[in-house]
Amino acid sequence: MNSRDKTFRLAVCQMLVEKDKKNNLVKAEKLIRQAKKEFNADIIVLPEMFNCPYNHKYFHITAEKFPGETAIFLSGIALDLKTFIIGGSIPESEDGNLFNTSYTFDPKGKLIARHRKIHLFDVNIKNGISFQESKYISPGNSITVFDTGFCRIGIAICYDMRFPELIRKMALEGASLIIVPAAFNMITGPAHWHTTARARAIDNQLYFVCASPARDASSDYIVYGHSLMVDPWGQIFSEAGEDETIISGIVNPSEVERVRKELPLLKQRKPEIYI
Amino acid sequence: MNSRDKTFRLAVCQMLVEKDKKNNLVKAEKLIRQAKKEFNADIIVLPEMFNCPYNHKYFHITAEKFPGETAIFLSGIALDLKTFIIGGSIPESEDGNLFNTSYTFDPKGKLIARHRKIHLFDVNIKNGISFQESKYISPGNSITVFDTGFCRIGIAICYDMRFPELIRKMALEGASLIIVPAAFNMITGPAHWHTTARARAIDNQLYFVCASPARDASSDYIVYGHSLMVDPWGQIFSEAGEDETIISGIVNPSEVERVRKELPLLKQRKPEIYI
Repeated sequence: MNSRDKTFRLAVCQMLVEKDKKNNLVKAEKLIRQAKKEFNADIIVLPEMFNCPYNHKYFHITAEKFPGETAIFLSGIALDLKTFIIGGSIPESEDGNLFNTSYTFDPKGKLIARHRKIHLFDVNIKNGISFQESKYISPGNSITVFDTGFCRIGIAICYDMRFPELIRKMALEGASLIIVPAAFNMITGPAHWHTTARARAIDNQLYFVCASPARDASSDYIVYGHSLMVDPWGQIFSEAGEDETIISGIVNPSEVERVRKELPLLKQRKPEIYI
Repeated sequence: MNSRDKTFRLAVCQMLVEKDKKNNLVKAEKLIRQAKKEFNADIIVLPEMFNCPYNHKYFHITAEKFPGETAIFLSGIALDLKTFIIGGSIPESEDGNLFNTSYTFDPKGKLIARHRKIHLFDVNIKNGISFQESKYISPGNSITVFDTGFCRIGIAICYDMRFPELIRKMALEGASLIIVPAAFNMITGPAHWHTTARARAIDNQLYFVCASPARDASSDYIVYGHSLMVDPWGQIFSEAGEDETIISGIVNPSEVERVRKELPLLKQRKPEIYI
């Protein structure tokens, strides 16, 4: 924790994503404005793939090169509301490749972070989910941790959160809050969502926040929902159900410091043994 | 998984530990014989510090240099029952140092593994638990993974399990089952025990088994109990309450292989990014 860190209010918009990109941007604007009005949030978060369904058929037609329509929208509303906007993720195109990318804009509308999903969702669960994200999406190759004036924040996207090494690395680079736009499904969600999020918070003693789209039972890939906020002791202090909603909560960076003092896990690591 | 791996039955003795070492060895023998008789267990596990209370006052007077009274007892009963015995942990003395050490004996009574607790429990939780294990105990400095003919097994002790790097390392060295003699307490147990155990199983896609002493509400350090067995999908399939009891369950190494095929997390790691 930096001595200038301060307590702030965070909101997550668990948005119901539609097929049409324009409709999604209209919806995102409505929810962001509502999050500002109802909660006076300092940082507002959107879910993974908030401008198109999580389905490869929509990735190409929705994708945009930075700064495209979605990035310009996010920048504009960040400036208008003088609020940090963590723009979930969108399909981003560059040099013929597609990425699953999250943009963060500061209250002046300036891009201050861009995370490209590193670990792609290539799974084949018997009688369950089959998905080969890497057929369509190229992986990012770097971690994303940045300053906000409130605290240092790390961004990961969905499957990234399954890799404890990545989250540890962000903690060691000073993150007090990790935000994960993520769309788990009806197999992996009930089995792993809460436990993984809580364990990342417990192990690294930081705030861990997941932002899911709302559940659409008619879509090809049915997401789990349950956006949530976990504190540095591993307690969930705000959680959505499956429907479209906004959740909000207070992030207090001094809680990170307190828990790390009581149980000094990060200092007690023995890296020489883990090699 | 090795092609020769096979399904087996595991039992954990959640033993109520007393102050007197002799009484504890008598009790351990009774529980081990019961685990063999009732469940026909192939591998029987005892809890952390099963021959003395988890309190520094007892460490020195209970400690023994290998092979001492406790090790000889464990070796003898392993041979007698033709069963693997994972002897929880005991205070071990060597060259003037004390260690928190776990011995494993094979069905011939031969010592096949010795793990010394690496991460010592030095915490100071406000209005909760204060413990400085490193004042009395010296740390081990190596990981412990070994073959049994059933599957490769890793051993960690209590606070060791809080470090995802250690558990990951054991998974990468081929463990399909990790066994953790552990004595969480009434603060950290309810807050972190189940979540941490389940997350280690989910992240590493292996069986994760914790062996706690039974709860003694009259002791200085009141343990949580709740010995448990988690499968490679993160489901708890056997769990104790707080009292002295034996839990048992089947470990099927091919389940490890199946889950790792469906969700190939270990292959999808990007070590070059975690450095």
